[in-house]
Amino acid sequence: MSTEHNEKMKQVQAEHRAKMAEKTDAERGLMLVHTGNGKGKSSSAFGVIARALGWKQRVGVVQFIKGKWITGERQFFNRFPDEVTWHTMGEGFTWDTQDRERDIAAAEAAFAKGCAMMESGEYDLIVLDEINIALRYEYLTPEAVTEGCLARHPRTSVILTGRDAPQMVMDAADLVSEMGEIKHPFQAGIKARRGVDF
Amino acid sequence: MSTEHNEKMKQVQAEHRAKMAEKTDAERGLMLVHTGNGKGKSSSAFGVIARALGWKQRVGVVQFIKGKWITGERQFFNRFPDEVTWHTMGEGFTWDTQDRERDIAAAEAAFAKGCAMMESGEYDLIVLDEINIALRYEYLTPEAVTEGCLARHPRTSVILTGRDAPQMVMDAADLVSEMGEIKHPFQAGIKARRGVDF
Repeated sequence: MSTEHNEKMKQVQAEHRAKMAEKTDAERGLMLVHTGNGKGKSSSAFGVIARALGWKQRVGVVQFIKGKWITGERQFFNRFPDEVTWHTMGEGFTWDTQDRERDIAAAEAAFAKGCAMMESGEYDLIVLDEINIALRYEYLTPEAVTEGCLARHPRTSVILTGRDAPQMVMDAADLVSEMGEIKHPFQAGIKARRGVDF
Repeated sequence: MSTEHNEKMKQVQAEHRAKMAEKTDAERGLMLVHTGNGKGKSSSAFGVIARALGWKQRVGVVQFIKGKWITGERQFFNRFPDEVTWHTMGEGFTWDTQDRERDIAAAEAAFAKGCAMMESGEYDLIVLDEINIALRYEYLTPEAVTEGCLARHPRTSVILTGRDAPQMVMDAADLVSEMGEIKHPFQAGIKARRGVDF
């Protein structure tokens, strides 16, 4: 990382803290990272959405996953269009290509959507689901993601999920949870299944 | 643990496996344990509920928590009385006492409710939320909980949450996830908040 960038990030952090300092603790949104190799990173973010909706909060989700995979979570939260804004990366794109430039453009467009929601002040909670995977593939940079999250409205919490969260992103977060897996003899043969894993 | 009990548990496990062997993999419900000291044990169970509802599955929840604590998850999932059956331990009880016998009776009644739902064959998913805490306080025995979970209908998955899951319960499970916390300098002063933690 360049010194120039380091300076920039320090400034972003300082601005973020100044903005947060004006709020009481209960009003302050948090930045949370769910990472690790085990299950539960995305599902616990969806559980937090359920909690937020129970308190009549407003939620935005950007899913950084490819393709037209139908998931239980999307089908469920789509029932609440006034309460949950849901965007899946690459909507309107064709994913049949092996075109890295296209992938990057799709990830950047999705993150721009997330940033717009985070800055708007209209949301209590934003979930950037599997964004760490987009970072791992270098579709997005840790610098851009960190800056975007720190520039969010003070009332808004954000959860970033996915394995291999970059150190810079974890350093900027208020809380980092690591989901691990305790190995188990029966585990090997078990396939992902509807209603549990997706 | 007595030899007699060991024999009993072996028999229960054998019966469970025979019952499961008749089902294809996709039809078989799983037993999952979410444990560890970090965040995300209950919230990921609530996320799995959202997924299950997205696939039009039927869900039962027994929460082994005391008192009249209002939670976002309960307020939210109560919106779907036809899809989610929700029971909180100690409903109808007064918790103002320091009466251990009463606590045990409440936990046993709650678990009996969970067992009835698990055996009925009417549910795709049962969540026994914070049951590991009831085990830690010795309101319930690991033997009873293990037996009850293994006696469930083959189509039904069950998730047990809470820190300090007993070894016997983990041994009986198909999958065990451990939620850890990566320590963080900002973490200390952060209080639990609405929509994120409850």
